[in-house]
Amino acid sequence: MTQVSIKRLSSSQSDFAQQLDALLAWESVSDKRVNQVVEDVITQVKARGDQALVDYTNQFDRMQAQSMAELELSTERLAKALHDLPAEQRAALEAAATRVSQYHERQKSDSWRYVEADGTHLGQQVTPMDRVGIYVPGGKAAYPSSVLMNALPAKVAGVNEIIMVVPTPDGVVNELVLAAAALAGVDRVFTIGGAQAVAALAYGTETVPKVDKIVGPGNIYVATAKRAVFGAVGIDMIAGPSEILVICDGKTNPDWIAMDLFSQAEHDEDAQSILLCPDEHYLNEVQSSIEKLLPTMERQAIIKTSLETRAALILVADLAEAAHISNRIAPEHLELSVEDPEALLPSIRHAGAIFMGRYTAEALGDYCAGPNHVLPTSGTARFSSPLGVYDFQKRSSLIMFSPEGASEMGKVASILARGESLTAHARSAEYRILD
Amino acid sequence: MTQVSIKRLSSSQSDFAQQLDALLAWESVSDKRVNQVVEDVITQVKARGDQALVDYTNQFDRMQAQSMAELELSTERLAKALHDLPAEQRAALEAAATRVSQYHERQKSDSWRYVEADGTHLGQQVTPMDRVGIYVPGGKAAYPSSVLMNALPAKVAGVNEIIMVVPTPDGVVNELVLAAAALAGVDRVFTIGGAQAVAALAYGTETVPKVDKIVGPGNIYVATAKRAVFGAVGIDMIAGPSEILVICDGKTNPDWIAMDLFSQAEHDEDAQSILLCPDEHYLNEVQSSIEKLLPTMERQAIIKTSLETRAALILVADLAEAAHISNRIAPEHLELSVEDPEALLPSIRHAGAIFMGRYTAEALGDYCAGPNHVLPTSGTARFSSPLGVYDFQKRSSLIMFSPEGASEMGKVASILARGESLTAHARSAEYRILD
Repeated sequence: MTQVSIKRLSSSQSDFAQQLDALLAWESVSDKRVNQVVEDVITQVKARGDQALVDYTNQFDRMQAQSMAELELSTERLAKALHDLPAEQRAALEAAATRVSQYHERQKSDSWRYVEADGTHLGQQVTPMDRVGIYVPGGKAAYPSSVLMNALPAKVAGVNEIIMVVPTPDGVVNELVLAAAALAGVDRVFTIGGAQAVAALAYGTETVPKVDKIVGPGNIYVATAKRAVFGAVGIDMIAGPSEILVICDGKTNPDWIAMDLFSQAEHDEDAQSILLCPDEHYLNEVQSSIEKLLPTMERQAIIKTSLETRAALILVADLAEAAHISNRIAPEHLELSVEDPEALLPSIRHAGAIFMGRYTAEALGDYCAGPNHVLPTSGTARFSSPLGVYDFQKRSSLIMFSPEGASEMGKVASILARGESLTAHARSAEYRILD
Repeated sequence: MTQVSIKRLSSSQSDFAQQLDALLAWESVSDKRVNQVVEDVITQVKARGDQALVDYTNQFDRMQAQSMAELELSTERLAKALHDLPAEQRAALEAAATRVSQYHERQKSDSWRYVEADGTHLGQQVTPMDRVGIYVPGGKAAYPSSVLMNALPAKVAGVNEIIMVVPTPDGVVNELVLAAAALAGVDRVFTIGGAQAVAALAYGTETVPKVDKIVGPGNIYVATAKRAVFGAVGIDMIAGPSEILVICDGKTNPDWIAMDLFSQAEHDEDAQSILLCPDEHYLNEVQSSIEKLLPTMERQAIIKTSLETRAALILVADLAEAAHISNRIAPEHLELSVEDPEALLPSIRHAGAIFMGRYTAEALGDYCAGPNHVLPTSGTARFSSPLGVYDFQKRSSLIMFSPEGASEMGKVASILARGESLTAHARSAEYRILD
């Protein structure tokens, strides 16, 4: 038993809205020093290319590379990592990759077109990006599952070339990460990281090809660099700490819920785990399970800090109110650990991923359920989506007017263009008006 | 006749790639002073809310407002603007709105779900955003067509509330813009602009509600503010100067092509107009048309500066090479002014909008063809798309495991989680393994 001091709230308390706001408040660090370092790194990589990459990598990752050739891994090296994997791990990784690919196949958009009565064609052409970059963190947060989750949607989208960057501080390589890269069909891997890797992908160097979009998680330097290069290339969302919100009717084994909360909390001290339940007695049971199970956890120090600084057990009036509060939170992960999750689903408006029913542990979604584990954090599910195939496809509008259509619409365009004092627009349209 | 000095290039010249790179080079201004002003404005609006908005608006737009109540336009005021419009303009605006809505209806994504053999459900729930903000510039760049193009996709997506901000410097209101807002179903309009309007939409004030996403064009202060609030809210792409690329086989009336080039050039001095043609004689004809027509244009000073600093007439070997160069450019607007545009289309990989055939003037797409006129600029069509309904919808993954499915996948997740040393993840999954 370890005593764990977790915030308790009730939706009936008069200051609940303020308490909830305070609980959720999260400001990503906007540090002038970090900005300056990142700006310098980007400037150097743009100016000195490979040499800057080699210098920074030797400096920050304590390497002794002479040239970029030493900082690229061959496809044979990746294949060897996959080949040498213990059979059980390889089978699990392959099972996960298959399910993730199958789910993502459903996300592919197709081109479409329609023809109007006068013969005018309108449509939308959907094409994959040519080349994308995937950032994979080194060190303790090096996750093979992230390689699959970032690379496979690009592969399904039909992206021609996938470039991965992964720092190897002190030369330490993660074999599982390389195996996942081989399995996901990553084309080239450079053992570089930090803002220098982001800059290389965004602007290209002699060795590292410029990509169209950069995805994948990273530390504050990586996030700051991604924000800085946004526009020159596309980026995915800049992720905050991971979160889980569990709505429980009080009938799930409290040990299960405690462990589900732990599974977010173990990511890092800033991760956030929240439980909503209409049964106060059940909240106490989960509290007891937490205190019972915590001493058995390998990452108990991280979990304890996370739970004591960021978690909350919240008493709600009923499940309808829980859904309402969930929409306010717009959680990254939402577990509906209730008897009838289908009944609750229509009330859920904002969430990255929704895990329905007592058997659907959030952890399954992290690895092998099929949907992506890269999800909008910090309430951004209000306006953004899981990483998906759509992030690696783009659309072009198609317009082909018949002479009759151009004539009729030319009249409309002419009036509107003249209303905006854009005479060249008007005359360009008017040329196509038939006599 | 006005002599116009336009750059001439040929794809056969040895330094063509470098010349093309130089022509396309565009760096958006990253001015430390602008950044500082924007940072201050955002800080003030977050701290002082309405009062900061009123102060900045009085200062920057030379207004004398006492409170935010004076800086909101009633729906009656918008309806009156629409009602008072000349019949011809109203009909044109309505025709455009109808076509834009019809096209965008085809972009709506639907939720989907599938059931696996063991009873596990996987799917994707698609929902609209709750509330979005539309920035509409005041002054010379106040375009009613932009109101339609930004508001209607949100409306089609099912967004519950659309908030528009439009500065009215010196109190000057654009009736066409208000009419377009009424027609598009904008819910509330505030006569504020600049970084202060962006900050208000991103963080909310006593009067201006916080939105989920901000779209719409603006000056460097607006663009800088959008970049700064990105993450707290969603934003659309930050637009560079407008561009057109025309691929012509040399058989279109050269006056038409000259006017199509003008229609981009008249936007502003930085706009870019490029023509690719395999017929040198035709390039000379277009040059003559340009010199003949320029003196007849209202915005001839802007057009001349734009053409002389940013345009190019480029001789290519053939249409296949033109398509190749077009993919390098990834233009915002691409006209395929050729006999058989369908034959050329499969070679086009990157473009915001593709205008096919001699009759399809780009200007039609700006107003009433149906597709959106908010398009990726400066080569960003490599990784981004026209503004669309998809920009106002977001997705949530759905996962509902059957007990059997959870048991099988729990085994896979357990192996992978332990490979990542995430024991709580593993144990959370293992609890659901059936005996």
